[in-house]
Amino acid sequence: MNDDLIDRLRLVRTPGIGPVTYRQLVARFGGPAGALAAVPDLARRGGGKAPRLFERSDAEREIAKVEELSAKYLVLGQGLYPRLLAEQEDAPPLLLAKGDLNLLDRQAVAIVGARNASAAACRFARGLAHDLGRHDLVVVSGLARGIDSAAHDGALESGTIGVIAGGIDVFYPPENEQRQMAMYERGLVVAEMPPGTEPRARHFPYRNRIIAGMSTGTIVVEAAPRSGSLITARLAAEAGREVMAVPGSPLDPRAQGCNQLIRDGATLIQNAEDVLETIRPIEPSFRSTTFAYEPLEPEPINGHDALGLVEELLGPSPVPVDEIIRLSGAPSGAVQMALLELDLAGRLDRHAGGKVSLRAA
Amino acid sequence: MNDDLIDRLRLVRTPGIGPVTYRQLVARFGGPAGALAAVPDLARRGGGKAPRLFERSDAEREIAKVEELSAKYLVLGQGLYPRLLAEQEDAPPLLLAKGDLNLLDRQAVAIVGARNASAAACRFARGLAHDLGRHDLVVVSGLARGIDSAAHDGALESGTIGVIAGGIDVFYPPENEQRQMAMYERGLVVAEMPPGTEPRARHFPYRNRIIAGMSTGTIVVEAAPRSGSLITARLAAEAGREVMAVPGSPLDPRAQGCNQLIRDGATLIQNAEDVLETIRPIEPSFRSTTFAYEPLEPEPINGHDALGLVEELLGPSPVPVDEIIRLSGAPSGAVQMALLELDLAGRLDRHAGGKVSLRAA
Repeated sequence: MNDDLIDRLRLVRTPGIGPVTYRQLVARFGGPAGALAAVPDLARRGGGKAPRLFERSDAEREIAKVEELSAKYLVLGQGLYPRLLAEQEDAPPLLLAKGDLNLLDRQAVAIVGARNASAAACRFARGLAHDLGRHDLVVVSGLARGIDSAAHDGALESGTIGVIAGGIDVFYPPENEQRQMAMYERGLVVAEMPPGTEPRARHFPYRNRIIAGMSTGTIVVEAAPRSGSLITARLAAEAGREVMAVPGSPLDPRAQGCNQLIRDGATLIQNAEDVLETIRPIEPSFRSTTFAYEPLEPEPINGHDALGLVEELLGPSPVPVDEIIRLSGAPSGAVQMALLELDLAGRLDRHAGGKVSLRAA
Repeated sequence: MNDDLIDRLRLVRTPGIGPVTYRQLVARFGGPAGALAAVPDLARRGGGKAPRLFERSDAEREIAKVEELSAKYLVLGQGLYPRLLAEQEDAPPLLLAKGDLNLLDRQAVAIVGARNASAAACRFARGLAHDLGRHDLVVVSGLARGIDSAAHDGALESGTIGVIAGGIDVFYPPENEQRQMAMYERGLVVAEMPPGTEPRARHFPYRNRIIAGMSTGTIVVEAAPRSGSLITARLAAEAGREVMAVPGSPLDPRAQGCNQLIRDGATLIQNAEDVLETIRPIEPSFRSTTFAYEPLEPEPINGHDALGLVEELLGPSPVPVDEIIRLSGAPSGAVQMALLELDLAGRLDRHAGGKVSLRAA
């Protein structure tokens, strides 16, 4: 078996090692093997118990299961891992994918929306997905009921990717089993969680960040205020991607979420031409086979021990890491290392936008 | 009778003297009497026949008719003339108004839209007008079928102004006679054309500029692409006013105009709160009884005769007056005078944005 993959999987599946921590560990310790070996010591220095590492045997068992399912691991920074997603600070270090991996090499647009959307909106989403497919765009969605299903159906011939919240082999909602099977064959299904995972409420925002992160733009079709689709739209905006929304009459309550998005700056979309006008043309580098992702260069720490200093500067309110570095006066590498130590000791919370806080005891 | 009003009316009703020419004449010759006296000479110097001045007896007859109709003249730069409209370069020098003139002293918002709008959109317009009225806004519209009528109906209790394309005493469309009669009593009706004028197609864009010009913002509810409502929206944008539009489903062809407006930068509006958020609060000066409009100071001409120079610089393509002044090297007052002369001789066309061109012979 591939030792590098086993080590990565052990890191990823260890509770308390999130995507940002993973990235820093692998960069600072020259790879996943070094990172794994360093974790216990770092956690001790951070003043906590070392996290219980995911066992090698469990990793081997998962890899065997994935092979049996005919799925593939996509490794952040390698091969076919979605390039736009890799740009995100919290990109999943590993993804599982089953289906036509070549779809990952084409420009993608997300179509998301309400599970209980109107029949008219579903028809609209299906037509839009179909038209975007004719322009060589891959349609990404979440394999949910309603708009998601309609978008996948419209783009099944031309190319569609379903990102699911549970394991790669789990069908949710159950009535989408046939659709997901069809996408194994003619599209692509992507999952972050281990095989066999039943999706829980907390998994859906993670799923949404993958949908937004791998797409040039996200189109919302019918969404209630405070719905998951609006979270996906916000994540797309935070990722610097285009946010588009399909308007509706103010008399139609199902249009309120999209209308509000447009008021907040999303581009109003009426058809595929409007989408094509909005999304940036693919930059030449996008299709190149050389992958832009590079691991972080470890910075020299110069024997500086910033842990005490950093601990003092942290509190329960999230603060940008840059500010901690500035206030500490310590080398950035030393501060990052101190944060890693606190993190692995279970004493740090990482927030959006590169902010950190001390975890309430 | 009021000689000043008679002179103004004679200037306004003389063919070939548009609002811009009127303003310049009155400013340069110290008032309407001086302007009237100067017209024949100016036209001769410009190399054309003098325009046939509107007769004093015709002016007196119109004034008597207006009194009989219980309507009032509003004079640009005086009294109750709508302050926001007066800011526009092509503001009508005279308006006729019948009804509650106090409505002119309150902040106004325009609601316009399709004559053949859906019942749902008409209901929406009526409700929106009603809600805006409760926030002390006067609702301006064009007394047309469909959205216009619904907007007036919704705001009849709180205050509404109908700007019509024909004469103040003409009902168009005929089925709106009762509505217009009600607005004489409880609202206000405004017209630019002489009493008795049947509205023609070319009058409607003039009417639309008054609607847009007197309103803080213009809201479009259901409009077909290339419709008059979109012209009103464009005029509002050119006047620096807010443009707002009510969205609709892309599957509804009647929503296309509004959706396109929003794509072009109009603010999406779902209810009165959205409108109130969008329009600028009234500046204190707005309600002051001192009127901001001042006639232009005549600039010294210093005996400079710029006519030949200006004629050479003009061609069939519209050019900004500022550019003519710069290229001529002549004093701005002399260039303006030369343009007036060409204008009154029927040899100049004035365009939007302060541009001018020589008229094709």
